Amino acid sequence: MYPQHTVPTHIHKVLIFGAGNFASCLADHLGDSEHEVYLWSRKLSFVQHFNLHHRNPDYLKEHSFSHNIQAVGPDLPDKEFIRGMEVLLFAIPTQAVRETLTRLRPNLDDQKTPLFIFVNKGIEIGTQALTLEIIVDTCGPAIARAATFISGPSFAKEIVRRQPTSVSVASFSQTQAQKTSELFHQPWFRCYTGNDPIGIEVAGALKNVYAIAAGMADGLGFENNTRASLITRGLAEMTRIGSAMGAEPITFLGLAGVGDLFLTCSSPASRNYTVGYRLGQGESLDVILKTLGSVAEGVTTAKGVKKLIDKLGVDAPIATGIYEGLYEGKYIHQGVRELMSRPPSQEIKLPEKAGGHVRDLMRKLELDETHHD
Amino acid sequence: MYPQHTVPTHIHKVLIFGAGNFASCLADHLGDSEHEVYLWSRKLSFVQHFNLHHRNPDYLKEHSFSHNIQAVGPDLPDKEFIRGMEVLLFAIPTQAVRETLTRLRPNLDDQKTPLFIFVNKGIEIGTQALTLEIIVDTCGPAIARAATFISGPSFAKEIVRRQPTSVSVASFSQTQAQKTSELFHQPWFRCYTGNDPIGIEVAGALKNVYAIAAGMADGLGFENNTRASLITRGLAEMTRIGSAMGAEPITFLGLAGVGDLFLTCSSPASRNYTVGYRLGQGESLDVILKTLGSVAEGVTTAKGVKKLIDKLGVDAPIATGIYEGLYEGKYIHQGVRELMSRPPSQEIKLPEKAGGHVRDLMRKLELDETHHD
Repeated sequence: MYPQHTVPTHIHKVLIFGAGNFASCLADHLGDSEHEVYLWSRKLSFVQHFNLHHRNPDYLKEHSFSHNIQAVGPDLPDKEFIRGMEVLLFAIPTQAVRETLTRLRPNLDDQKTPLFIFVNKGIEIGTQALTLEIIVDTCGPAIARAATFISGPSFAKEIVRRQPTSVSVASFSQTQAQKTSELFHQPWFRCYTGNDPIGIEVAGALKNVYAIAAGMADGLGFENNTRASLITRGLAEMTRIGSAMGAEPITFLGLAGVGDLFLTCSSPASRNYTVGYRLGQGESLDVILKTLGSVAEGVTTAKGVKKLIDKLGVDAPIATGIYEGLYEGKYIHQGVRELMSRPPSQEIKLPEKAGGHVRDLMRKLELDETHHD
Repeated sequence: MYPQHTVPTHIHKVLIFGAGNFASCLADHLGDSEHEVYLWSRKLSFVQHFNLHHRNPDYLKEHSFSHNIQAVGPDLPDKEFIRGMEVLLFAIPTQAVRETLTRLRPNLDDQKTPLFIFVNKGIEIGTQALTLEIIVDTCGPAIARAATFISGPSFAKEIVRRQPTSVSVASFSQTQAQKTSELFHQPWFRCYTGNDPIGIEVAGALKNVYAIAAGMADGLGFENNTRASLITRGLAEMTRIGSAMGAEPITFLGLAGVGDLFLTCSSPASRNYTVGYRLGQGESLDVILKTLGSVAEGVTTAKGVKKLIDKLGVDAPIATGIYEGLYEGKYIHQGVRELMSRPPSQEIKLPEKAGGHVRDLMRKLELDETHHD
């Protein structure tokens, strides 16, 4: 049923940092498109297993990977190897990005920097920095301005089965966004470019918090109207927070915003949704986290988001309510009661964009707010 | 669990045109808030049954309505009755609005016009007019500018059970939007005001077409990534069409946009979704419509939307594909193939707003494009 597979005009050398669920599916996708792919893992056992069996022992276990993907590690590849790469793709947790980039920086060739692509989602705990800010801190403004970000509704297990998938690809540099789009685009994997990496990042990080809220409403026994309105009001909050950080409101209408929020909030397969659902049913957070069997990023992100909201002075009752429910032992029914008691208001109220936070980041990036290349 | 029921400071006299599913639940909601409510039906048997049993024989059959709601009809109420009303709420099909307003017009008191509220969703077949345009044509620009529109994710059967529900309330007149919000607002029924009635209307009409698309993808066997991206790209299309008609893009982020689209596309209870699903499974439209047992508005709207797209010159591949699948016998798999073969593109491309269509409507409304009271 698909149109012809597009064969690339140039075989790219791609190094992927990380060997988790999403890293593996992107490796598979690029390998499938005939690129030369290296998958870095800090686990020797993974490297050996993958290169012998062409399978990931931990994720997408049923899937057999193509032979042009090679695992490397457990040490970070050396300077010569790094300099031979045309694309560096980061699919590691946000909390590991600063350290990895710091170690990588000395090995980069300033005359010939590769294409930097980031797919991690989250806010750095402690600093509340976006990945963009971590990049500028560790690698300088030129690399940060050229970095591209991919986000959108994309379950890994569906990508490896070539289920039609669409994502947003954003960068301050339209040239680099275009290059990334060309690298990934296939008839079953559509890339839509944009120039708002901040919006893409904020949406990716915050959606997990609102997925907890959606799960909670379902767990409490609320029905369709309530869920749809909670998700929509969550989106309005994300947009307000994003705008205060310098994002374009319209970005939240896209695949990384509505699209990913929709996916995360409607699938019982989502861990964050499940945490919320079980909280709504009356279980305690401790018990849920002990028995969940994997990490629900929204639980950690809620902490960073609370600090961010306070710093920005943005009105965000849903995220605040989730934080209080998770960390301050607030009775959930009381939280819902307070949400419903708020006075009627205007639907879309966006804050002024040029707050201190935005100005600081833009200054670091050596960008004025309207710059695109 | 709810905060205290808000008792109105003033008991309003409300006449609701229509006695269908949504008309009945709004009557119930306003009756519940102690207003004096009249429900007009053109069926004598309904009027008699309702006044005797306080039940609607056709919709929400299990529900017992409060005694301050009275059915009137089958004739349109007379001049004196109309002039005693403070609120006229129209919950009739879009195709009946022109005729009803034309008959009503001579009975209105120009010195003391009531609050006009519209909850119908759709485009007038033949003219492709929005309700706003029908109002200005029949009642003049002053009434059209003061008209308010309610839309959002709101299944009637959940509203009568006081499931928390939120809606958008929009008007060119902030005063009238505020009045409508005060009339309807309760802790379990939240009204968010806005000043973009065109956006609210476009979203309400178009969502049914994209619900067909979402159903179709599910019927064809596609999974979560595909559905989420289809809904998001549908939203981008709605936003483009809306912008070309004079709507604010940001409206589509709200309850009447994302919220209602989300509800309609995720519920198997939605008739439009069901039509799409069965088409995807290979049934013919004829068979589906014969056995559906009720009307799927998206099937009719798709025709009007196709004309509108052509007139506006907007890029809308999903709505076009649905039209061709419904009316030109195009093989659905071919349509999907074409959608997926489109070249990579920018994610959010909005057309210039000040097209001929907008200018005509604004001229009729005697508004410049930035006017609000």
